[in-house]
Amino acid sequence: MKPVVVSVSARSGTGKTTLLVKLIGELKARGYRVGAVKHDGHGFSVDREGKDSWRFTEAGSDTVLITSREKIAMIRQNPPGQEPPLEETIARYFQDVDIVFIEGFKQNAFAKIEVHRRACGDPLLYRGDHHDPQLIAVASDVPLALDVPVYDLNDAVGLCDLIEARFLL
Amino acid sequence: MKPVVVSVSARSGTGKTTLLVKLIGELKARGYRVGAVKHDGHGFSVDREGKDSWRFTEAGSDTVLITSREKIAMIRQNPPGQEPPLEETIARYFQDVDIVFIEGFKQNAFAKIEVHRRACGDPLLYRGDHHDPQLIAVASDVPLALDVPVYDLNDAVGLCDLIEARFLL
Repeated sequence: MKPVVVSVSARSGTGKTTLLVKLIGELKARGYRVGAVKHDGHGFSVDREGKDSWRFTEAGSDTVLITSREKIAMIRQNPPGQEPPLEETIARYFQDVDIVFIEGFKQNAFAKIEVHRRACGDPLLYRGDHHDPQLIAVASDVPLALDVPVYDLNDAVGLCDLIEARFLL
Repeated sequence: MKPVVVSVSARSGTGKTTLLVKLIGELKARGYRVGAVKHDGHGFSVDREGKDSWRFTEAGSDTVLITSREKIAMIRQNPPGQEPPLEETIARYFQDVDIVFIEGFKQNAFAKIEVHRRACGDPLLYRGDHHDPQLIAVASDVPLALDVPVYDLNDAVGLCDLIEARFLL
């Protein structure tokens, strides 16, 4: 019972996150359980200095959890230099969702939607020198002639129809 | 291969978190993999408005993950009113640690260390009206005559010797 995984990828400045937020909202409205994974290359921080959870991590906890009635938050340190494979992370944390969107993993083996904006330059990531057979659609602010369907940059409904038809129904 | 679980409990203002930080550091120095779970009753926030992960949660993602080479952070929404049982949470997220300290769960079935400070009042949580057979030690700033060992409030080494002897060696 693995979740469906769809990668949303783009060059910088295309409005990828804005579209992703719309896709999540649209699938949620259709009754699916939805997950999202963002890859961060810049050393993110979700915790705040001085908070108990921060102190536990500083003291050497490999995994710190905060639980409440509403939610669970976790901060887990990877062994040095060992970011676990994405497939393993998805299998571990997304057992109970229907679909997971991943963002920021340019090289990956999953179905992909590429977000394109004319002002951000060509060629497409997955239809340039590198032709990725996993590309299932492009969302763009201009018409493009491609071997996959092209949707308007804001057409979350159309993209979710495609995702639903191909993977969820 | 379940981890050992030890609850650290106290009335407010005893310095419980400070001791817990020392216990984590001491066991980590002894080579164990350590986890911590804090129960929060006040609606904590680990995310920040406007960040991508926050936007994904707002859009309806049930689980959001941020990954990097160093760490993984997760925010998972519970189904309405359904905080999962602590045992389930521990089994799910702490498969690869040796010991997990839990804090903020006054009623629980695990081994307990009670932190006591004279100025914070008596009786003990687990030796008053309610006698908890799972109490294994007390850390206090005053000598107490009890049926379990009493350690100084700062004696992380002594407490870790006890934890190691009872559960880890």
